[in-house]
Amino acid sequence: MKHNLIFRQLLDVKGGSSTFTYLLADEDTGDAVIIDPVIDNYSRDVQLIDELGLKLKFILETHIHVDHVTGAGRLRESFHHAQIAVGGENKLAEADIQIVEGTIFEIGDIIIESILTPGHTNSCVSYFVSGMVFTGDSLLIRSCGRTDLQDGSSKDLYHSIKGKLFELLDTTLVYPAHDYDGKLVSTVFEEKRFNRMINQQTTLGVFEKIMGEIDMPIPEKMDVVIPINLNCGISNTI
Amino acid sequence: MKHNLIFRQLLDVKGGSSTFTYLLADEDTGDAVIIDPVIDNYSRDVQLIDELGLKLKFILETHIHVDHVTGAGRLRESFHHAQIAVGGENKLAEADIQIVEGTIFEIGDIIIESILTPGHTNSCVSYFVSGMVFTGDSLLIRSCGRTDLQDGSSKDLYHSIKGKLFELLDTTLVYPAHDYDGKLVSTVFEEKRFNRMINQQTTLGVFEKIMGEIDMPIPEKMDVVIPINLNCGISNTI
Repeated sequence: MKHNLIFRQLLDVKGGSSTFTYLLADEDTGDAVIIDPVIDNYSRDVQLIDELGLKLKFILETHIHVDHVTGAGRLRESFHHAQIAVGGENKLAEADIQIVEGTIFEIGDIIIESILTPGHTNSCVSYFVSGMVFTGDSLLIRSCGRTDLQDGSSKDLYHSIKGKLFELLDTTLVYPAHDYDGKLVSTVFEEKRFNRMINQQTTLGVFEKIMGEIDMPIPEKMDVVIPINLNCGISNTI
Repeated sequence: MKHNLIFRQLLDVKGGSSTFTYLLADEDTGDAVIIDPVIDNYSRDVQLIDELGLKLKFILETHIHVDHVTGAGRLRESFHHAQIAVGGENKLAEADIQIVEGTIFEIGDIIIESILTPGHTNSCVSYFVSGMVFTGDSLLIRSCGRTDLQDGSSKDLYHSIKGKLFELLDTTLVYPAHDYDGKLVSTVFEEKRFNRMINQQTTLGVFEKIMGEIDMPIPEKMDVVIPINLNCGISNTI
């Protein structure tokens, strides 16, 4: 981690989604980026950004979430210079930046690099910053995101994880969007060896079989949340 | 943070206490310490220590907890060379080390220094390691521990926070035992300015008044948990 990087991992307790939100800033300029804000924590996040004296420049989504409403739209109302960036094939009317492979965001002299990691959804992007990678629901700690919703694809996820995320340095810290076991961070080294769904030995065929056998319920809030998140969290009804 | 320090913040999800457990290790030797393990996460913690190839040397308590059973005793059963250390006036029969002011723990060339911070309870100890301080329930993020239980003392807590924790460098990262707002870390700088219960301007009289007016329920598990924790989490009934 760079010495001038302010870094905060935050957890959605209030909204009950247990989503991790990440705030990163350059200490010298105060320029900041937030990844995956949750609308329920809007006040907390605004207050923290203000207390730390930061200037929010970018609001990044790792994907279109199904378990919470994004705080992106509301944050942009408060921080007028902030731009919302999302990836994938859906062009969102309210987004300012459409992420493609390698899209760069700069806060001071800190570089954030976008890595398209589709598979959990077709909108999934991971962000690499100074020895850390923010993987959303693509790569979780000892697990990975389901691939049966939102144009998910086990084949795409396999190539995203094995071909991209596992190619990062072993020491890279892996910060996911969730962990239901109370872990907060992992490393590429650990996931290549100990991930239960996909490790460095796993073949595409085995992975597709594992993912195909997952039988999880449809997320409760999905039908309500997706349309709002496709509008960057901006809704007349909330 | 030292370059050779392995550092993991963990959250008690399974036991429902939202306690933060901290695992620190020296990368070169693999020597490790765990702070405030929760018995419900015993398997997770053992597995993580094994996966990372670590040798657990010390199990440290920030205080005698009232909201969960400590995992100290069970962890020592699995890692025979680990020693349990606790502070305060109660001499615990099952503890290996009785912490006094300045007690040092070494893992590789990493030094962990004990700072007695009574007030929330009379057993409270904070641990300082390489620009980070683990404050238990003494200093929380924008808050502090209650002082109406377990021989608590607002006056003692005031002196622990203002006289000791706020005297650390402003850049010191503050890692508490809990945060119910989803924050995971703070700094001495922030707490001196933005803590709602005690900041750098707060007088003892004001602090005692604030703490005296807190009206919180008695923790549900307290009567069951304290006797077990006074035995380092070792009980015939669990």
